[in-house]
Amino acid sequence: MLRSRIKSFVGFSKVGTQHIRALATKPEFTELSPCTREILENAPASNTEVEINGWISSSRISKNVAFLDIKDGTTSEGIQCVVRPPSLLPADIKNGAGIQVKGTWSEGKGKQKYEVQVNANNNGKIDVLGPVEELFPMIKKDHTLQYLRTIPEYRWRDPSLAAILRFRSQVETTLVNFFDSQMFTKTNPPLVTASDCEGAGELFRIESNSMIPKKEQFFGKEAFLTVSTQLHLEVLCAALNRVWTLSPCFRAEESDTNRHLSEFWMLEVEISFINHVSQLTKFSEKMIKSVVKNLVNNHNGMGSNLINTIDKSNVDNMTQRWNMLLSKDWDSITYTKAIQIIQEAVDSKTAKFDTRPNWGDSLKSEHEKWLAGTYFQNPVFVTDYPLLEKAFYMKINEQQVEGELEPTVACFDLLVPDIGELIGGSMREHDIIKLKKEIERRGMDVTPLNWYLKLRENGTVPHGGYGMGFERLLQYLSCTENIRDVIPFPRSVDNCLC
Amino acid sequence: MLRSRIKSFVGFSKVGTQHIRALATKPEFTELSPCTREILENAPASNTEVEINGWISSSRISKNVAFLDIKDGTTSEGIQCVVRPPSLLPADIKNGAGIQVKGTWSEGKGKQKYEVQVNANNNGKIDVLGPVEELFPMIKKDHTLQYLRTIPEYRWRDPSLAAILRFRSQVETTLVNFFDSQMFTKTNPPLVTASDCEGAGELFRIESNSMIPKKEQFFGKEAFLTVSTQLHLEVLCAALNRVWTLSPCFRAEESDTNRHLSEFWMLEVEISFINHVSQLTKFSEKMIKSVVKNLVNNHNGMGSNLINTIDKSNVDNMTQRWNMLLSKDWDSITYTKAIQIIQEAVDSKTAKFDTRPNWGDSLKSEHEKWLAGTYFQNPVFVTDYPLLEKAFYMKINEQQVEGELEPTVACFDLLVPDIGELIGGSMREHDIIKLKKEIERRGMDVTPLNWYLKLRENGTVPHGGYGMGFERLLQYLSCTENIRDVIPFPRSVDNCLC
Repeated sequence: MLRSRIKSFVGFSKVGTQHIRALATKPEFTELSPCTREILENAPASNTEVEINGWISSSRISKNVAFLDIKDGTTSEGIQCVVRPPSLLPADIKNGAGIQVKGTWSEGKGKQKYEVQVNANNNGKIDVLGPVEELFPMIKKDHTLQYLRTIPEYRWRDPSLAAILRFRSQVETTLVNFFDSQMFTKTNPPLVTASDCEGAGELFRIESNSMIPKKEQFFGKEAFLTVSTQLHLEVLCAALNRVWTLSPCFRAEESDTNRHLSEFWMLEVEISFINHVSQLTKFSEKMIKSVVKNLVNNHNGMGSNLINTIDKSNVDNMTQRWNMLLSKDWDSITYTKAIQIIQEAVDSKTAKFDTRPNWGDSLKSEHEKWLAGTYFQNPVFVTDYPLLEKAFYMKINEQQVEGELEPTVACFDLLVPDIGELIGGSMREHDIIKLKKEIERRGMDVTPLNWYLKLRENGTVPHGGYGMGFERLLQYLSCTENIRDVIPFPRSVDNCLC
Repeated sequence: MLRSRIKSFVGFSKVGTQHIRALATKPEFTELSPCTREILENAPASNTEVEINGWISSSRISKNVAFLDIKDGTTSEGIQCVVRPPSLLPADIKNGAGIQVKGTWSEGKGKQKYEVQVNANNNGKIDVLGPVEELFPMIKKDHTLQYLRTIPEYRWRDPSLAAILRFRSQVETTLVNFFDSQMFTKTNPPLVTASDCEGAGELFRIESNSMIPKKEQFFGKEAFLTVSTQLHLEVLCAALNRVWTLSPCFRAEESDTNRHLSEFWMLEVEISFINHVSQLTKFSEKMIKSVVKNLVNNHNGMGSNLINTIDKSNVDNMTQRWNMLLSKDWDSITYTKAIQIIQEAVDSKTAKFDTRPNWGDSLKSEHEKWLAGTYFQNPVFVTDYPLLEKAFYMKINEQQVEGELEPTVACFDLLVPDIGELIGGSMREHDIIKLKKEIERRGMDVTPLNWYLKLRENGTVPHGGYGMGFERLLQYLSCTENIRDVIPFPRSVDNCLC
């Protein structure tokens, strides 16, 4: 990797010079111009002629000299250009303008490690490629995140938000390599489906726009956008053993909160030949820790894809959170134990909640956050919830354990401090007779699930898996308050701006 | 990587033994059972007790000994189990059954490098986890691909098809690492959109299922599934310089062919600060070559994610194709030159086509395939098509060149032998006045594109990008005839089986 970057930089140095010479004759450029991250990670030798492309992040102009900070979004770092005399500056220098600078690379004189000298006598030149208007909102900084959400075509030019998108990319890349190292097949289950996986009913229906007036059906039946790819992943794990996906999912929820999206990306995992939910909890812990380790290790690297533009206090929160996640093995308790702990806390007045849950009640967000944030002060797995609280496909535990009032299922939720549930998973019922019985008991229509039942007729094996909202993970790891700031173009009720 | 795999294998060896000892007392397993690929890549020492999970791929039973070939889908390789006496076999041994074998790892005696000895005196044991029924179609092999498409819940258990999904995963992983090395940000533009990027009209409309009877609009306006994420990617490349995505796209095309899908994955790239379409062609060539190099390098590795289960003749075709792709720099010609070459071939009777194209006509599939397959015998870029043939957002070339009868645009198609167009891309018009003029000239409604025009009002820079159907690439690289065999659950008109 390092070698290839250095090589590509040798390419840059040469090409950079050629560019400058050749500009007058309009050559056919055959390489990308080096981006800021490339240049900073493989700094040229002093006195090399360079070409810098980017947007003006800030400027300071005095009588004899002007300083421009140029960023191009490939890293949070900028490159300082020192312009002597300032008369070399074009008229329309404003924050946000896209520019191209030609000058000489040199050691920095002040805080800057490097700078680019733009002088009349070294053929230094500044071209404004894309000027900005007087009223361009991004000329000013420190807009509220709420305001920035109203200008989707510009908001990612804010350096803190741009850092979140680089962060998102880094987390995804880490996950791809983690699953590859664990010998999983990455796969793409369908988004258009005829089955409602969760049975929750918050579906989007889709139809060919040209067929709607004719009242015809493009797919020959009603078709919906998937709410979870799990059922289809189960087909694939019965062929490939270990599968995962990172795939868009859709929920027509009308709630308009800072943690719901109508279109979101879900990471789902399905694994054959496992026998106990603890294999899933341990594996999901390993997965998240692999991401966090990568973040911690890259945190100080120059040009890393990290959030080092975000305000200082948030960085402290973040690194504290990351260190907490890595500090020890995560605890695992049963739902029954969780109810006991919460009841004892209420009765001893150690904690205050709106409700005191009884066995069989669902854990509310206040309980989940308290368990992880206050009681364990660490992520905690809660397993073996009551059957009545969970979906039809979960494996029913054969034996009831002391304290359980009704049947439970072999499932888990991962609760983390501050946000509550991050992952949900379970063993899947692979016994066709039991699964059919449960579908009937719930009064569900079995017809659209016939293919799913068929899976159990032949070569079925014990298996299980889990799902994690990708934006929820990003929101948590980056200490971002609103989920709409970790996805490029958030969609929710009444919100499809462009 | 190697070190971590070896470590994980040390883990396996220990855990494997523990499993066997502990099974009687129903322990909480805390690790995944090692998969076949893990075991083969880190073969245990002879005489280690092992546990093998998988599905029976084939069996041979004689009087004194039985041979079972067990595969689990993590690699095309299987593990041979040698059972002495055959009476240790359970009754329901059939192809496709899910089983668990306990035995002793040993050096192979025949063609096999390794085998697992299952004997009564080493606590050898075979459990059928998931039996198959008499009528299970996958007991037999050599079904047609067409027939397999009718049983979507089982078809990926076919070893050749499973190999295609591993191949797909490998190609995606390679691309993720390629773009990471090139300092691109991977990003996720929205699938739900209010704009029709291509203006081709083959849209799916979406609406909340619960709002359809009430005739309300969930998003407060008509919303569609995206046909291309390009317009949104342009927003992001104006903040992050280099961006890419691999994202589902949807087209309500009613054509039912072996190369169309209604739901497919598209790789799209958008790059700022480029000035010429040749920067895009060179970069896309580099991208594809990086994938092919990875395939060639991993082709002979045991347990690699490759298609070495596919029949021999297809492997020869494939490797020939891969070598051709790497053999030299790809040519680039203008549309005008392409028309000349085709016309000359027709006139000299070197080639026969249904039509002889005139300047201004679109290149038909027969022309594209001939240019790449016969004339160049190599991939070839065709650039600078007539404006009237292409989309509104492409940059119009300022000067007409000899032979051009009308204005052309700075665009390219990548044509490859046998399949024709694989990639399409262009420079984008970043001059707001020219872009508006073109939108008006075409009589398009400008309102839904206002946000896209606004991008050009502030800090716009020269940029361009391209799109490639991911399944088209997979189909080409794996020599697969029908595109429906490279995506897990294909969707097309009247086709949404599960």
